[in-house]
Amino acid sequence: MRFDVFSLFPSVLQAYLEISILQRAIERELLEVHLHDIRAWTTDRHHITDEPPYGGGGGMVMKVEPVFAAVEDVLGAPPQSPVILLTPQGRTFTQKVAYELAEYPRLALVCGRYEGFDERIRQHLATDEISIGDYVLTGGELPALILIDAVTRLIPGALGDPTGASDDSFASGLLEYPQYTRPAEFRGWTVPEVLLSGNHAEIARWRREQALRRTWERRPDLLNTADLTDRDRKLLDRWEAERAAASRPEPDPSPSASE
Amino acid sequence: MRFDVFSLFPSVLQAYLEISILQRAIERELLEVHLHDIRAWTTDRHHITDEPPYGGGGGMVMKVEPVFAAVEDVLGAPPQSPVILLTPQGRTFTQKVAYELAEYPRLALVCGRYEGFDERIRQHLATDEISIGDYVLTGGELPALILIDAVTRLIPGALGDPTGASDDSFASGLLEYPQYTRPAEFRGWTVPEVLLSGNHAEIARWRREQALRRTWERRPDLLNTADLTDRDRKLLDRWEAERAAASRPEPDPSPSASE
Repeated sequence: MRFDVFSLFPSVLQAYLEISILQRAIERELLEVHLHDIRAWTTDRHHITDEPPYGGGGGMVMKVEPVFAAVEDVLGAPPQSPVILLTPQGRTFTQKVAYELAEYPRLALVCGRYEGFDERIRQHLATDEISIGDYVLTGGELPALILIDAVTRLIPGALGDPTGASDDSFASGLLEYPQYTRPAEFRGWTVPEVLLSGNHAEIARWRREQALRRTWERRPDLLNTADLTDRDRKLLDRWEAERAAASRPEPDPSPSASE
Repeated sequence: MRFDVFSLFPSVLQAYLEISILQRAIERELLEVHLHDIRAWTTDRHHITDEPPYGGGGGMVMKVEPVFAAVEDVLGAPPQSPVILLTPQGRTFTQKVAYELAEYPRLALVCGRYEGFDERIRQHLATDEISIGDYVLTGGELPALILIDAVTRLIPGALGDPTGASDDSFASGLLEYPQYTRPAEFRGWTVPEVLLSGNHAEIARWRREQALRRTWERRPDLLNTADLTDRDRKLLDRWEAERAAASRPEPDPSPSASE
């Protein structure tokens, strides 16, 4: 899979490509990431990539010409691959979107800076707009890396461990179960006995229940789309009943001792 | 404001601190970011920071001792500042959470790797757990930078422009309005006339309406918590009515010509 990333600060992306999963995916030729400096496609003497917005207001807006020139030069005109803007106005990135993007052989990512893109880039060059979350960042560089990281993990062979991706949070639609490693005791805090039991069926059942419980407590919204078993649903019903019972007012006390 | 970031790959964080807003905030002494390599607090000969999980399964789990040692050495035992784990199991990071965190003078961020943290880190060291979105990443390093970027933008004086942060997407609870800069025409695509009019009241009205329209079309969920005016609500009612009218089935056609 190939990513072409267009940015005013391509150098900040480099270090993250040189470690861990991304580095190995590049070495194994499962992944190519080409970083392009949009400034190289400016034609004026001062290499201007941004100017104040029409209509006033603070900040600077990324100019239309260098972005078109860069993307069309690298990907053809019109571009032959999806062109994704990283912008807070985009659709929200989720693991589902990561699976969708992992189907493409090649993607272009365009990183905004300043107050954003000239609207004509959005209307006439981009084919998709993605936001990694509801918060304001200085640019699209970190979101581009997030997207590359999440998508690369789904490329067959990119994770050393073939079961790696399917066990993660969100892969099953649930948060991940608690993990423990050595030592078995630290400052008196011990590992749950079931994990030391060697009983794999028990361990699998405990982990599923823990994942379900954690999701129910922390992110109940995820339960609407998670892939649940009958046993999961029974557990959820029981927890809901226990919660309801706990929040009911105490029954009237018997006459107090002072009477 | 000071961040202490604990990671197995602190070097990948450095480049992003050396550009743009974060660089300037550091130069102006509004921001300090201290990067700590967890591996420096291992005591065994092989500097082991991770081991296979108890109970089996793929992947590696971050060990409890080096993380406790690192955080307590830098922040005291118990730590005197919030200790935030970056993990998919955490509460979802939003602009509201960024404002909340910007109130602290100092925050510790602990970046997971591999299959996650030993649960005892979560239970006995962390005071908060944050997820930047519902997708699976290789580690907490990018999430830590996302959090630092979003929070730093809210430190008074960190943005050159005093109105910078308040105009952004999500700051008002709406997506941002379309932006344009020179040239006024590119490949026949022109800038909306109102933005060239010089009429500031008209421009403000147009921008608000565009921000509202874009939010209504792309992220209607944000309208539940946005700060809306009476005029906004009237516009929304009108758009909803138009949409309902457009989706109503056509009235019965008059008898067709073939009859």
